[in-house]
Amino acid sequence: MRSMKAILIYSGGLDSTTLLYDLISQGVDVDCLTFDYGQRHRREIASACEISTELGVRHDIVPLGGLTPFLESSGSSLVSDSDVPDCYYTDESAKRTVVPGRNLVMLSVAAAIAESRGITKVFYAAHSSDWSIYPDCRPEFYEAARQAIVLSSAWHPVDLVAPYIEMDKAAVVRRGVILGVPFEKTWSCYKGGDFPCGTCPTCVERLEAFEAAGFEDPTRYL
Amino acid sequence: MRSMKAILIYSGGLDSTTLLYDLISQGVDVDCLTFDYGQRHRREIASACEISTELGVRHDIVPLGGLTPFLESSGSSLVSDSDVPDCYYTDESAKRTVVPGRNLVMLSVAAAIAESRGITKVFYAAHSSDWSIYPDCRPEFYEAARQAIVLSSAWHPVDLVAPYIEMDKAAVVRRGVILGVPFEKTWSCYKGGDFPCGTCPTCVERLEAFEAAGFEDPTRYL
Repeated sequence: MRSMKAILIYSGGLDSTTLLYDLISQGVDVDCLTFDYGQRHRREIASACEISTELGVRHDIVPLGGLTPFLESSGSSLVSDSDVPDCYYTDESAKRTVVPGRNLVMLSVAAAIAESRGITKVFYAAHSSDWSIYPDCRPEFYEAARQAIVLSSAWHPVDLVAPYIEMDKAAVVRRGVILGVPFEKTWSCYKGGDFPCGTCPTCVERLEAFEAAGFEDPTRYL
Repeated sequence: MRSMKAILIYSGGLDSTTLLYDLISQGVDVDCLTFDYGQRHRREIASACEISTELGVRHDIVPLGGLTPFLESSGSSLVSDSDVPDCYYTDESAKRTVVPGRNLVMLSVAAAIAESRGITKVFYAAHSSDWSIYPDCRPEFYEAARQAIVLSSAWHPVDLVAPYIEMDKAAVVRRGVILGVPFEKTWSCYKGGDFPCGTCPTCVERLEAFEAAGFEDPTRYL
């Protein structure tokens, strides 16, 4: 039996690494795509490279640095000089970490690459803990983006799949534990220093998810 | 009264140049975006630059050349070595000129830039003559892409507008004549030589549109 091929939008973070392990455990032949959009935490790309190399899956870095100057005026902490806030991940100030259109751009490019490779599925690891601050992680966005991708790819149909979209991050952690995900190699922190800060919204979300799941985060924080 | 600001996806072709003139005539303050995705007919970018400069509108070229190597395997004539077919624009072989995901990628990036600039509208000049070969010019695609953009941009809402989507290309030509569009400066040909070929699908479509509209195309063909 020929195994199913899929493209995974792969940041090197906890969620997409768990999804990568999940797909592999299901026998899916995964091509990983990591997007370099000039993000402050480029450190995540190194994690993505390390983990995908160890797993022996195809991994490409998609260079979108040409877009970064166009996004600076958004004031997003991830693509401008604006500081990454230290706050709870559903606080109003966490909105400063939103990058305009990030998921839609990544999904569109991934779908275009899938179509070019004759691959029919694109996966992304959106989950419910991100719904409040990141509109492009919500089910209604996912459905619209999926529709757009399906309709755009009429001649070589591509579908979009977000298997964790109704799960919270604690559930993703629990799934990762079962799958043996090397959490210590994944990178979440938006500050992108040598060690994760433990205080930015995504570090706080991660720590809370481990606690809610009843496991210890093996990451060494600052 | 502060004039409405908008972003226009601007190729330098007949349709988007007509839409540019149309928006300006309505007092809209237009920012043009032209996408460099390694297209064979990069010649169109020079047309876009010339026309936007004469009009004195802001014009940025968005560099997406990093994507081109990923699209080559699609075999699309516009981003690979595959020859541009000479055929009628609704022929099966015209599908070779489809670039996977092109409009969705451009719309997503344009929406991200609009959101970063605090601009609430993105325009694109899709029309009904392209429905048969280009799925990403169809009304149902437009509606889905629009939904995805609106939902993605929840904190700084951006809308997508395609005012020509129910018009055929002849109607766009008629509109351009009324607006005084300098058609001779626009570029359509997919072959991207020194002069338009007159035989590729987009040249054929253009010539037919002028004939149906009852005007002569001022372009000098090969």
